[in-house]
Amino acid sequence: MKIPEVLLVEVEHAPGSLAKMLTAVGECGVTVEGLQAQSRTQSLTLWELTLSLPEGDHSVYMDAINAVDCAHVVGTSDRVFTRHEGGKIHTRSRMSIDSLSKLRDVYTPGVARVCRAIEQDPSLANRYTNLPRTVAIVTNGTAVLGLGDIGPLAGLPVMEGKAALFQTLAGLSGVPILIESHDPKVLIETVANIAPSFGAIQLEDIAAPACFEVEEALQARLDIPVLHDDQHGTAVVALAGVLSGMREVGMDPRKARIGQVGLGAAGIGIGKLLTAYGVTNLIGTDLSEGALAHYESFGGKRDSLEGVMANADVIIATTGVRGLIKPEWVRPGQVVFALSNPDPEIEPIVALKAGARFAADGKNINNVLGFPGLFAGALNAEAKRFTPEMLIAAAETISAQARDGRLVPGPLKVSVHSAITQAVADAAMASNA
Amino acid sequence: MKIPEVLLVEVEHAPGSLAKMLTAVGECGVTVEGLQAQSRTQSLTLWELTLSLPEGDHSVYMDAINAVDCAHVVGTSDRVFTRHEGGKIHTRSRMSIDSLSKLRDVYTPGVARVCRAIEQDPSLANRYTNLPRTVAIVTNGTAVLGLGDIGPLAGLPVMEGKAALFQTLAGLSGVPILIESHDPKVLIETVANIAPSFGAIQLEDIAAPACFEVEEALQARLDIPVLHDDQHGTAVVALAGVLSGMREVGMDPRKARIGQVGLGAAGIGIGKLLTAYGVTNLIGTDLSEGALAHYESFGGKRDSLEGVMANADVIIATTGVRGLIKPEWVRPGQVVFALSNPDPEIEPIVALKAGARFAADGKNINNVLGFPGLFAGALNAEAKRFTPEMLIAAAETISAQARDGRLVPGPLKVSVHSAITQAVADAAMASNA
Repeated sequence: MKIPEVLLVEVEHAPGSLAKMLTAVGECGVTVEGLQAQSRTQSLTLWELTLSLPEGDHSVYMDAINAVDCAHVVGTSDRVFTRHEGGKIHTRSRMSIDSLSKLRDVYTPGVARVCRAIEQDPSLANRYTNLPRTVAIVTNGTAVLGLGDIGPLAGLPVMEGKAALFQTLAGLSGVPILIESHDPKVLIETVANIAPSFGAIQLEDIAAPACFEVEEALQARLDIPVLHDDQHGTAVVALAGVLSGMREVGMDPRKARIGQVGLGAAGIGIGKLLTAYGVTNLIGTDLSEGALAHYESFGGKRDSLEGVMANADVIIATTGVRGLIKPEWVRPGQVVFALSNPDPEIEPIVALKAGARFAADGKNINNVLGFPGLFAGALNAEAKRFTPEMLIAAAETISAQARDGRLVPGPLKVSVHSAITQAVADAAMASNA
Repeated sequence: MKIPEVLLVEVEHAPGSLAKMLTAVGECGVTVEGLQAQSRTQSLTLWELTLSLPEGDHSVYMDAINAVDCAHVVGTSDRVFTRHEGGKIHTRSRMSIDSLSKLRDVYTPGVARVCRAIEQDPSLANRYTNLPRTVAIVTNGTAVLGLGDIGPLAGLPVMEGKAALFQTLAGLSGVPILIESHDPKVLIETVANIAPSFGAIQLEDIAAPACFEVEEALQARLDIPVLHDDQHGTAVVALAGVLSGMREVGMDPRKARIGQVGLGAAGIGIGKLLTAYGVTNLIGTDLSEGALAHYESFGGKRDSLEGVMANADVIIATTGVRGLIKPEWVRPGQVVFALSNPDPEIEPIVALKAGARFAADGKNINNVLGFPGLFAGALNAEAKRFTPEMLIAAAETISAQARDGRLVPGPLKVSVHSAITQAVADAAMASNA
């Protein structure tokens, strides 16, 4: 698995030195992710060099750099870890409680008046508490990124990341909830019992097939929106990518032949949403007979991996298997989405060189574009559930905001998330969600 | 029940006018809580007048004010509600995620590196997540303030208040968890299942006797600190008050005869902590035979309400019954703590007039002085539980910080909470908690 590694490299402050060092890096077959000057003496510059490297021993890269006469690796940077130091989120008071008058209003005795008002009219909780902006981010850690079943504690940095993005992009309060169980019934009972604490439930990084049972049972029991992000958040952004790609190549997405490689939680969610959108020509492949049967239950057709690659206009891969797709399988003109994180089934640049018209990976087609607005829209509309109309509205809005021939917009524009929020809320109203 | 009501009163801007208006208020038997000028024209001042009024019809107070020739009630202020508008807490990102470099470090793909590190060494979660500063604030809403069983949703403003104070006073992240159940087993199972999400568990406003079973079972199952605040938080601050009061009257608190009126969650918690401190002469009264038996199980003796009042040097009342204690029962020189919120068993001023040496109510002797430092200390020390030594250290520190003959320090001084945090952490280490 390749994850960013940050090296600190001292390079002579002279013409051509930096290029020599980067040439050595390039000759190792490694692409530069980032480069930033940290400090400079008269003769040397300290560069922070971000590379995506395989896990494990990095001496080969360091040796290659050190072999350049004007460069020297002085260490690795803890930048990724430093940015996690102390955790990525915290609960804060909305007002500064700096006088006894405020204390007596927001705590005892004044708070009693608000409690009484909510007791008499529970809908006032939407006005006088943070409940309608609070989303549980629930995981049992059985399918974290492409890392697999690493448990909920090791998955917590991802949940905190979701919460940080909920606030940054949509003003929502995310609350990581870690449940140490593989039993869907334990997840269902536990989440149902704490559901009054939240305005909505995001299920996250729960492996298939448990994720399907958990989501379905919770949505049936609760009258607040429940969404398994790995299925539907990913599906929304994948649909957005399909809409953009088909727009660029001038093909009706409903008539395109769409091939899916991998039918786990994400693949099934994508297949269902494409079907809801009106795509009728879906072919998919997976190693699991159960997954294939599930796929066929809503109209997908099974094929071999090679068959899918040979026959589809669009490929959507969600297997978690790095490098699964061989370049020679890519059909000229194909649109290829290799969505597994952190390592795609085929690097976009490789797919493009092999003849793909468009190619993207899961860092680009990422559900960070979807979930903040999906939840904010559902909560703003006081929806009781997510409907396909809401998911489709989100996808269409994401696609519509892509500029300059790109498939999706940049993920950090708050205006993009505001537009998604509005579209989802409108669709929630229209579909009586 | 009396809760703050805020009236907006226009008063002629002339010498003596304000006094006339306040005289009318005083003649209604109502004490002024706060008075603030809001705006002024040439001839009139608009005052925001905070009074503690019984719930219900306030026309009698308004009529009394309107009967004054130079004053006129123009309405009521929503100040208490305004301060709750939108809720009192939210989850925030610790850093601004404003570049793709940061996004890729704190979210995918960089986060995978931190997940892997925690998978290999779970103790790193303490460093790279907010877990060790996160406290669940769990309630089923069965004993909220003095309001009784109003349910968890109506109790949420109290839980958000606790969370806001956790952050303000001790830098901790509080997370309200609402569970809609009266069954202790449901509470125990549910909280145990989500416990990996938190560094500690605060049980809050859960009625006796369920609270005892829930706390005991959870602490037995979990290796993180679990504290029922209504028992032990209140007990800590009550013990602090006893220590200060006995210091002022020159009596050894261990030898004092301490009388308890009301043996619910708070009363039992106080009795247990006094016993752990070394008090041997405890007498108590309650209407429930079960509560009395529980009290006797750790050495308390039962007596009648009148007997307790007649025989004790210190009275600690925790009944939730407003005005239960008649002034004529107060023994000259007695120390009287009437701790029910929002309405005490006897107003401190009444008790003092009846001959009490010291008197305080639950707004003064309030667990806001205790819980932030108790949890911060336990978490800083990585304690697995709260020990009596930790509770006593907190009480002694609170009492030691009281100044100028007061029983306890002001609740909003961060330095007070820092001192408690340190004392609790030291006691946790010393008692191997």
